[in-house]
Amino acid sequence: MPQKSKKKAAIILSGCGVFDGSEITEAVATIFGVCQAGAKPVFFAPNIEQAHTINHLSGEIESESRNVLKESARIARGEISDLKDFDANDVDAAIFVGGFGAAKNLSDFAFKGANASLNADVKRAVLKMFELKKPLGFVCISPASVGAVALGKFGATLTIGSDLQTAELIEKTGAKHKICDAKNFVKDPDFEVYSTPAYMLAQSPLDVLEGIGKMAREMLK
Amino acid sequence: MPQKSKKKAAIILSGCGVFDGSEITEAVATIFGVCQAGAKPVFFAPNIEQAHTINHLSGEIESESRNVLKESARIARGEISDLKDFDANDVDAAIFVGGFGAAKNLSDFAFKGANASLNADVKRAVLKMFELKKPLGFVCISPASVGAVALGKFGATLTIGSDLQTAELIEKTGAKHKICDAKNFVKDPDFEVYSTPAYMLAQSPLDVLEGIGKMAREMLK
Repeated sequence: MPQKSKKKAAIILSGCGVFDGSEITEAVATIFGVCQAGAKPVFFAPNIEQAHTINHLSGEIESESRNVLKESARIARGEISDLKDFDANDVDAAIFVGGFGAAKNLSDFAFKGANASLNADVKRAVLKMFELKKPLGFVCISPASVGAVALGKFGATLTIGSDLQTAELIEKTGAKHKICDAKNFVKDPDFEVYSTPAYMLAQSPLDVLEGIGKMAREMLK
Repeated sequence: MPQKSKKKAAIILSGCGVFDGSEITEAVATIFGVCQAGAKPVFFAPNIEQAHTINHLSGEIESESRNVLKESARIARGEISDLKDFDANDVDAAIFVGGFGAAKNLSDFAFKGANASLNADVKRAVLKMFELKKPLGFVCISPASVGAVALGKFGATLTIGSDLQTAELIEKTGAKHKICDAKNFVKDPDFEVYSTPAYMLAQSPLDVLEGIGKMAREMLK
């Protein structure tokens, strides 16, 4: 019964597109990383309106409103659950994908920096995984916008690559920042908390694939 | 000057999301395949309205209208051109990604089957690449909805996996169908025409990554 013993990894999305949702290459690299680790990806996103809808061709803000869960369903081929229904007991790991959605929809980090607040469902998911000592992974900007905002008070170590300004915001939350390149990841010395810079630093999609893949395989081994 | 000698592969998108645009995992697997072949991906999509906008959570048709080029820009991180400006002389290969968008936006195959017509920019791009004997790749449903519709009259050999009903539609155009699994691809014996089944058949995202990767590396070697 190989199906029964397969590990499950939650992939938490924040929309569909780098400028207002999840970064798509990172999301798919996470799917591949989880599958390469022999685990099954299960998708979650908060059922809320996006902070913005951005025209990805022009970069302009559009007037239309889009829903984070509905747009995230595009990446998940329709198989996605409301983050309200996330149960940390039911998964073996959880990975937060990057993209501006992680800093605008999962928290208000893009607007408030180190004083950001988390979406309530995001907060509950992260803190429960942390309490159960299950692996938490953060990609790209999400180590700052979700990881540090939730786990700064525990002094968790995280990376967003080498961007000093964002690293400073991470440290303001009480978290520690460690420099890392896009092909690698950082593991906290004490906690099951992992992070990788991805497009905060990557020069090529293959760097994203490599860094996220290494992190996912280590989290799920 | 390694940048100068790098091959360029056009990736042609049809929106962003499996039910009304490009299948996202296939699109990103194509990006990875092209990069692994040492080539640079350049993105194109037609500047037209989508045939439909589908709510990917419920599967329902929505009233809102979305633009194929603008939504495709989400996958391309904003770096994408109007397919009107595609110049076959300027690229070394062109790959059409799958998803329902390839059958509803790039042609009307989803509605008219073997009697489908191609979008004018798609038709021009495919026929010019074919005339120049440059490699053309078709993923998932696009071997039927684009490849066979454009190249059926030349008797090109294509695969959509093992779906007999779609294979029959392919043969009605004059093209030949060859059965293939998702981890592999088919090359026409005479022409630079390649295809791989991807999510027409794949059981896992890793099958998609493998089949598309093999095809892209062979096209660009």
